[in-house]
Amino acid sequence: MHFTSESSTDGVTQRHFTLDGVPGVLWQPDGLPLGGRPLVLLGHGGGQHKLGSVDRARRCVRERGFAAVALDAPGHGERPRSAQDERFATEIGELIAAGRPISAWVARHTAALAERAVPEWVAVLDALEEWAEGLGPVGYWGLSLGSVIGIPLAAAEPRVAAAVFGLAGHASQVEAAGRVGVPVEFLLQWDDELVPREGALALFGALGSREKTLHANAGGHLEVPELELESSERFLARHLGRVG
Amino acid sequence: MHFTSESSTDGVTQRHFTLDGVPGVLWQPDGLPLGGRPLVLLGHGGGQHKLGSVDRARRCVRERGFAAVALDAPGHGERPRSAQDERFATEIGELIAAGRPISAWVARHTAALAERAVPEWVAVLDALEEWAEGLGPVGYWGLSLGSVIGIPLAAAEPRVAAAVFGLAGHASQVEAAGRVGVPVEFLLQWDDELVPREGALALFGALGSREKTLHANAGGHLEVPELELESSERFLARHLGRVG
Repeated sequence: MHFTSESSTDGVTQRHFTLDGVPGVLWQPDGLPLGGRPLVLLGHGGGQHKLGSVDRARRCVRERGFAAVALDAPGHGERPRSAQDERFATEIGELIAAGRPISAWVARHTAALAERAVPEWVAVLDALEEWAEGLGPVGYWGLSLGSVIGIPLAAAEPRVAAAVFGLAGHASQVEAAGRVGVPVEFLLQWDDELVPREGALALFGALGSREKTLHANAGGHLEVPELELESSERFLARHLGRVG
Repeated sequence: MHFTSESSTDGVTQRHFTLDGVPGVLWQPDGLPLGGRPLVLLGHGGGQHKLGSVDRARRCVRERGFAAVALDAPGHGERPRSAQDERFATEIGELIAAGRPISAWVARHTAALAERAVPEWVAVLDALEEWAEGLGPVGYWGLSLGSVIGIPLAAAEPRVAAAVFGLAGHASQVEAAGRVGVPVEFLLQWDDELVPREGALALFGALGSREKTLHANAGGHLEVPELELESSERFLARHLGRVG
């Protein structure tokens, strides 16, 4: 893990890093150790990038005393696009222009991204754990593409203790969901134009977690109410505990 | 409206009343007027009664400065059971003993209760409005039977400005739900043994409200998490405003 820059604003230290070519950002309280502190993994949505999570990350640090980390997903942010990524960007534009359904197409492409992204998150957790000489409880927060990646990550990675997912729901995600056992809050948009409602309900239903809660609101994919986003942060905070 | 008793505990005045034979309870802050104050109508579940709502009512008064009112539903609490109520109690016991499904049966009986209960709530609102010389914003809170009654009430009664419903979902409730236009928080139990999941989702979907939110949790009919109940009270409070 190679730290490339460090800055501080209003009590929050922000460090950019790369690990095996994957660029990321780590946020933590100024002058306080990462070790033992609750850590929130922030997964971004499709077409977005690691710094799209900066407001949520800063709230985690300032309001909770947590640390937070975000990565650019494969083909996103500062990362080069593979030939596959380029093909996807071209073809999805053509599908949308033709008015054809895109959800199966998106699911197939994002499943391929997730296969690349999950080991990247595991490697970042390993590196941070070594650097900090031990991590506190880890939570995952990610909607849409952030859930397509986060669900198999939470299924595979025992360090993840609680998660916020949502705005996703394709049959290809169901098997991994069944292997998630930690508490989950799942956000669903009732009128989601990108994710079929039945698929999202089935994905929530498939989660193996004993403790799981679904919050569904009227509106489209990009219209999750601000109150729900705040609620989801409180959900994670309840499960990751207090810093004190 | 005939007040039959009055007592006060910890700043909350509790008054029992009857109106045309319907027994109810009114809670409000000691020594402060009802007029202009937000008022929460509390509908109880099947087999329960008006005083089952006392903790929620007292929280509305003590934490929010609201008033609250609860009625015994037809055939419940202090009210006599009709021959129809008696028949229902006998027959549902037989169905359960025989291991047969009861949801359609329950829906039919509770729909009949709602036809009697809705005009009773309207009459109580009329009487309180006259007694208080004007009401503040009115909210409705009721799950299960409380929703079977509350949904047609909110559809018919323009004084209801926001509502919490849930643990219900039968085709017979869908038409009234479409006429509800106020903000709704709807609680669903994912493993509800009394309410089919598809029916509850369809009922939420049918609500005509532009602003509506579904909170679904793992567990059975009687296992709504305490945090959701608290969240639902905050939801109502947000929509009924602050007492200043």
